[in-house]
Amino acid sequence: MVGMSHVEFRTSPAKYRHWRLAVDGPVATLAMDVDEQGGLVPGYELKLNSYDLGVDIELYDAVQRLRFEHPEVKAVVMTSGKDKIFCAGANIRMLAASAHSWKVNFCKFTNETRNGIEDATENSGQVYLAALNGTASGGGYELALACDRILLVDDRSSVVSLPELPLLGVLPGTGGLTRVVDKRHVRRDLADYFSTKSEGIGGKKAVAWKLVDEVVPRVRWQEVVSERARDSASSAPRLPGGEAIELAELDKSRTDDSINYTHVSASLDRDRAVAEITVRGPEADPPASMAGVYGQGAAFWSLAVARELDDLILDLRANETEIGTWVFKTAGDAARVLAHDDLLLANCDSDWLAREIVLYWKRTLKRLDVTSRSLIALIEPGSCFAGSLLELALAADRSYMLFGVFEDIDPDAPPAVITVGPANLGLLPMGNGQTRLATRFFGDADGLAAVEKAAGEALTAEEAEKLGLVTFAPDDIDWDEEVRIAVEERASFSPDALTGLEANYRFAGPETIETKIFGRLTAWQNWIFYRPNASGPDGALRAYGTGKRADFDRKRV
Amino acid sequence: MVGMSHVEFRTSPAKYRHWRLAVDGPVATLAMDVDEQGGLVPGYELKLNSYDLGVDIELYDAVQRLRFEHPEVKAVVMTSGKDKIFCAGANIRMLAASAHSWKVNFCKFTNETRNGIEDATENSGQVYLAALNGTASGGGYELALACDRILLVDDRSSVVSLPELPLLGVLPGTGGLTRVVDKRHVRRDLADYFSTKSEGIGGKKAVAWKLVDEVVPRVRWQEVVSERARDSASSAPRLPGGEAIELAELDKSRTDDSINYTHVSASLDRDRAVAEITVRGPEADPPASMAGVYGQGAAFWSLAVARELDDLILDLRANETEIGTWVFKTAGDAARVLAHDDLLLANCDSDWLAREIVLYWKRTLKRLDVTSRSLIALIEPGSCFAGSLLELALAADRSYMLFGVFEDIDPDAPPAVITVGPANLGLLPMGNGQTRLATRFFGDADGLAAVEKAAGEALTAEEAEKLGLVTFAPDDIDWDEEVRIAVEERASFSPDALTGLEANYRFAGPETIETKIFGRLTAWQNWIFYRPNASGPDGALRAYGTGKRADFDRKRV
Repeated sequence: MVGMSHVEFRTSPAKYRHWRLAVDGPVATLAMDVDEQGGLVPGYELKLNSYDLGVDIELYDAVQRLRFEHPEVKAVVMTSGKDKIFCAGANIRMLAASAHSWKVNFCKFTNETRNGIEDATENSGQVYLAALNGTASGGGYELALACDRILLVDDRSSVVSLPELPLLGVLPGTGGLTRVVDKRHVRRDLADYFSTKSEGIGGKKAVAWKLVDEVVPRVRWQEVVSERARDSASSAPRLPGGEAIELAELDKSRTDDSINYTHVSASLDRDRAVAEITVRGPEADPPASMAGVYGQGAAFWSLAVARELDDLILDLRANETEIGTWVFKTAGDAARVLAHDDLLLANCDSDWLAREIVLYWKRTLKRLDVTSRSLIALIEPGSCFAGSLLELALAADRSYMLFGVFEDIDPDAPPAVITVGPANLGLLPMGNGQTRLATRFFGDADGLAAVEKAAGEALTAEEAEKLGLVTFAPDDIDWDEEVRIAVEERASFSPDALTGLEANYRFAGPETIETKIFGRLTAWQNWIFYRPNASGPDGALRAYGTGKRADFDRKRV
Repeated sequence: MVGMSHVEFRTSPAKYRHWRLAVDGPVATLAMDVDEQGGLVPGYELKLNSYDLGVDIELYDAVQRLRFEHPEVKAVVMTSGKDKIFCAGANIRMLAASAHSWKVNFCKFTNETRNGIEDATENSGQVYLAALNGTASGGGYELALACDRILLVDDRSSVVSLPELPLLGVLPGTGGLTRVVDKRHVRRDLADYFSTKSEGIGGKKAVAWKLVDEVVPRVRWQEVVSERARDSASSAPRLPGGEAIELAELDKSRTDDSINYTHVSASLDRDRAVAEITVRGPEADPPASMAGVYGQGAAFWSLAVARELDDLILDLRANETEIGTWVFKTAGDAARVLAHDDLLLANCDSDWLAREIVLYWKRTLKRLDVTSRSLIALIEPGSCFAGSLLELALAADRSYMLFGVFEDIDPDAPPAVITVGPANLGLLPMGNGQTRLATRFFGDADGLAAVEKAAGEALTAEEAEKLGLVTFAPDDIDWDEEVRIAVEERASFSPDALTGLEANYRFAGPETIETKIFGRLTAWQNWIFYRPNASGPDGALRAYGTGKRADFDRKRV
């Protein structure tokens, strides 16, 4: 069954099998040209530019590298390297053969990549255009929906479509249903019709219904696509700054029970179903200016940690599904963490690299928010939960902060403190558009104001608990027992119910397209994926392509 | 299996087995005193004030009657008729024995009733107080969460709790997770702890964590509850008006293939899996003033139709799960529909009955919005889709309006028209806080403005289609074929995927607590309910009370 092999998320353009990245001044072209035989696991062929996780891992890598390695790029044309087909969406045989957890994790990652494309357009000044030189169906059209503008070739055969419902009995679950009405403002009844019509819609009707922005005759295709890309590039607010940074391959070692990077390490305890993740703070002060950051490149602490955390999250999610609890610790010098934050904060409105590092932190923390694992932060002496690293504790479902010190270990250690920094006050919003602090104190303006007032202070356990910044502050005598119970208890609960609980509690307050996709849409899709009408022996996913009709239980639920 | 018998939603206080309703001037007391042997279907005992659908049907009836039959009531104390227990939530043996569709439908109805309690508090000037004279666990606490204020007896044993996750491996799915953080503003990490601690929280900690508003020693209990109820009553903005209206039993006849009321009828076509629902407009002009409406009482057309539609929706949902498509038609005089709307509109800010009828329409239409059936409106000559009845077409997933007339049937008939009335422009918001028109034209301010400008005009099919008010306007030649395909196609699709599609497309735009409950929370709960970890032979729901531990698949999804 798909989903049994180890998945590695690190890649680079030299290794791509499915995408071609070409840069021409301010315009990059990202051409999807999927190798049919290049599936991540055996058992299916990636026909018609259909994709699996491996294809999407390359796409994610390309989007990331465009941000850091091609600062000159202001517009990205997403197109197909094949004639007549842009992309047929997620590979159906792969989906049909996949375990439920694999399908769900695959969809989550593809969603995050598409959100990252929108983030690049909105915040990085790299505007994505979908140049549909052939039919975009299902996930193919959903990929286009993540772009700022959609051009469709007008050749009487190329269409956009969402055939998931009529053909497969599932939803367009990679943001499709949400973006059609909430982003592109397609009228809901037209959207209903469109999403039940497997043959799709092209030409002028696709424009009139707002499914695409423009249809272009094939004879003028190259010309118009180039023109639109140049227009986008000329109006994109990409920040100036230094030369490109090379995202050198991460230094990572993995054993059966540990994953280690330069600043981040994780030890895996399979019996207790827990990963203990330690993030180490900077070992030196930051450079005096951005020039020094360019000099350090990908080795700059803030960037390096974001990359390591990002890879670790993806690795654990895909490969360690039974490790249900992640415990976060930090170690190091809080002042240096805050100094790194300050340097980025001072430059993120004027320098592309500072901006990109901040955006990368934002996206990485968002991954945590939608990760279906229980997150617990342990704040102990020697830790450095300050500013950007404090976000790890604020992202956690619960936090424990030691009151006092461990008498047996180091009675003379300075007790743990945490510090709210500028990074916690607006720089790193969650998917709901609010900071983690604002979400935490949703409906409690006084509580939030008190925390903001305490920014910059090294807060003891007592102070942090009183301000509502940590959940519990046990002392040395109670610590081991309380933490042990929290972790063991978590492992004793239904993993499904925990996933649902966490998905609800982490997102108090307002909703956005992003939270609607991860909340409403994903939850429905998970349910539908799991029902026999889709995944049973006679379900639509299994029946597709066999010539047999799916056999549905007709009861409406 | 639970869920096989026919469910009737009509009841009245004289028939209650589980609730006692007492009215003392402006304060009503609604005491839950569940008859253990009074389960709706055999197979379980309703111990500890646990509830099943039958208990909730009575609660719904009581809330409705308080609105219409007790206009003098301004505060409602929800309490328990039993010592030491307020309510233990949904009956677990009932849940364990229930079909998935039954569980989901049961939760939907209980959610709607709790939303109705909040609606009474916010909009009717009937403020609900939860007087927890004993432990409120699970759905019992969720019922309290729907009240404006929660009082808990402080006796060292009474607590509030959400033990669903630790004990049953499911979510508190009747709004619990959403209301805890979004309504009561419990901090998310405390909420996490609370919802994993099966023994619950009482006393001062329950107040400090905002789980309840007040704890009261038993010795002062009656006194304080009365005082708070009087305070609520004295500040409640209940409108003045005439005497109470009696909600006389609906005149309903049901055969295997039809359900008929005075103004509403439904014919059920099981082969095609479709119900054709016809709503007939008023046969006379409305009374000149509200005095005449009081004279007609429950027979007043607007109120009668709301009651009939409400009962029909509930009946079809519970009893006809395989009828996946509802086709709405209307017949009658549009001017009279609009005149009825106008009378209500002119008085709904000054007269309680006018207000209540409008609110009832609002709630009934909201039921449609969350109904997991495909809704299609057919607009034909002789119909009266205007104002309040036009909402049926706006709630539909698609609408078809005949262009011209049926040449073979009545070539001289006036062609169908629709009319946007004041009722469509703010009186009847959806759960997302927006009108159906605003949701339909989300992101299209010009489109909405054009429709608003056309208010009051009798719009032909051509005009309605151009304005985006109907989906398609086929002529006589194409009508039968287009409509037939739409209905047959719907029956050929996966019912699960349709449910997910509709739940997403119907709610473009902003989200509220209500839409979060029906979208995010419900969807997760449905998924969890369906997973073996909850409902499998070794799942937590089945294992509960047997002494066996649930056997979980530990994979996180």
